[in-house]
Amino acid sequence: MSAGGDGPVTDGAVTILARGEGLAAWRQIADGLSADIEAGHLAPGSQLPTEAALAARFGVNRHTVRRALAALAERGLVRATQGRGTFVETPRLAYPIGRRTRFSEIVSKAGREAWGDLLAAETVPADPATAEALRIGPGDPMLELQTIHRADGTPLSTARTCLPLPRFAGFAAAYAGLGSLTRAYAEFGVADYTRLSTRIHARPAAADEAARLDLAPGRVLIVLSSVNVDAAGVPIQATRSLFAADRVELVVEG
Amino acid sequence: MSAGGDGPVTDGAVTILARGEGLAAWRQIADGLSADIEAGHLAPGSQLPTEAALAARFGVNRHTVRRALAALAERGLVRATQGRGTFVETPRLAYPIGRRTRFSEIVSKAGREAWGDLLAAETVPADPATAEALRIGPGDPMLELQTIHRADGTPLSTARTCLPLPRFAGFAAAYAGLGSLTRAYAEFGVADYTRLSTRIHARPAAADEAARLDLAPGRVLIVLSSVNVDAAGVPIQATRSLFAADRVELVVEG
Repeated sequence: MSAGGDGPVTDGAVTILARGEGLAAWRQIADGLSADIEAGHLAPGSQLPTEAALAARFGVNRHTVRRALAALAERGLVRATQGRGTFVETPRLAYPIGRRTRFSEIVSKAGREAWGDLLAAETVPADPATAEALRIGPGDPMLELQTIHRADGTPLSTARTCLPLPRFAGFAAAYAGLGSLTRAYAEFGVADYTRLSTRIHARPAAADEAARLDLAPGRVLIVLSSVNVDAAGVPIQATRSLFAADRVELVVEG
Repeated sequence: MSAGGDGPVTDGAVTILARGEGLAAWRQIADGLSADIEAGHLAPGSQLPTEAALAARFGVNRHTVRRALAALAERGLVRATQGRGTFVETPRLAYPIGRRTRFSEIVSKAGREAWGDLLAAETVPADPATAEALRIGPGDPMLELQTIHRADGTPLSTARTCLPLPRFAGFAAAYAGLGSLTRAYAEFGVADYTRLSTRIHARPAAADEAARLDLAPGRVLIVLSSVNVDAAGVPIQATRSLFAADRVELVVEG
């Protein structure tokens, strides 16, 4: 906590709030904890004290603490997980969007371990929009993968990825073993590929999506729809990725 | 509905689903309604029939209809409003992010009228982050504009834009009269400028932000932080724009 006049003052075990100075107690607590997080006194991934402990520390009731924690969650600084407590969020990963966007490269460069898990794989008839993106006929068979992508174990995104068949028959097994699309493509003779376009929107997470990404229900998703082509310009992948907005910041270089 | 073998078949008032052909009923209904929306048979802003009416039409139970409607909402094609029914969304404005991102050009090309309103203008000392972006000293004076940007009168975004001083002294009056940054820069001898970078994240709107953008509270904002430079590479603008996520889709070409 800062010792200045603007925030809460720490005095041994109990923090004294600047009462009657115009700022609600919950907001002073939120601002103080926020300053602690931004200064690194509360490390990313660390657990906050319980509501009861914080209430005792600030000399307020638990309702006030709950409101402060809700404000921090709202700012994307902490994450409340059902029954397991409240944790400091890791700073958002800068995620460049461009011709050579590769999840595993980006995460590794940030010094974090990248891994993609295959949740499901199915051969399905192409819906019209995906068929157009992959330049195949509507109803033509395509391989649909459901995946989840983690950095140091924390889920950053979950995706539906469609690949044309028969070209990529057997791709699911390769991906499941390698944990990376880039490495799986290499096994299929695609040494390089580029991003044709990315469309970006954002919306609240549905309950099942939030659960899959270990997010509180209703947190925001950034939805990326992208198409990748091989060196000859042939589409090899149409993906819709749902990123936990609290955990990434997209970067577009001009 | 398409009359082909891939989707639901309309037979008078009742639509017959292709049962037992591998595609779940909810998905056939979602695809059929989606095709109707994309073909313009269901116009933007129009209300869908009630769940009961759709259930009768497709010969399924309301749970199946609900799942189909949830899938459409997920795709951003319809919006369910509490107690008022389900409406076809106005298509999101495709908003390219790149070296030559210009709000007024993008909106005009989409056949809609672009206008920016100046809400406030103030000379303030530069905070450290903005000073770095504008390559001026922290505390140096800069011009801070609060603006709102509309397409055909609907607010798409609200922004805080900072410009270096004294170079752009008087810019606020020029902008207020012209309703466009591009046109105001031209008056200051900046005939061309380019986007150096854009950082993108997303979060729920605060109450005041939602009110300014005429959004329901808690709807999602896409937050764009960008820096523009003149032809000589000198920063002329650091902006943080809040876009109503329901009304735009960002597009990044590879």
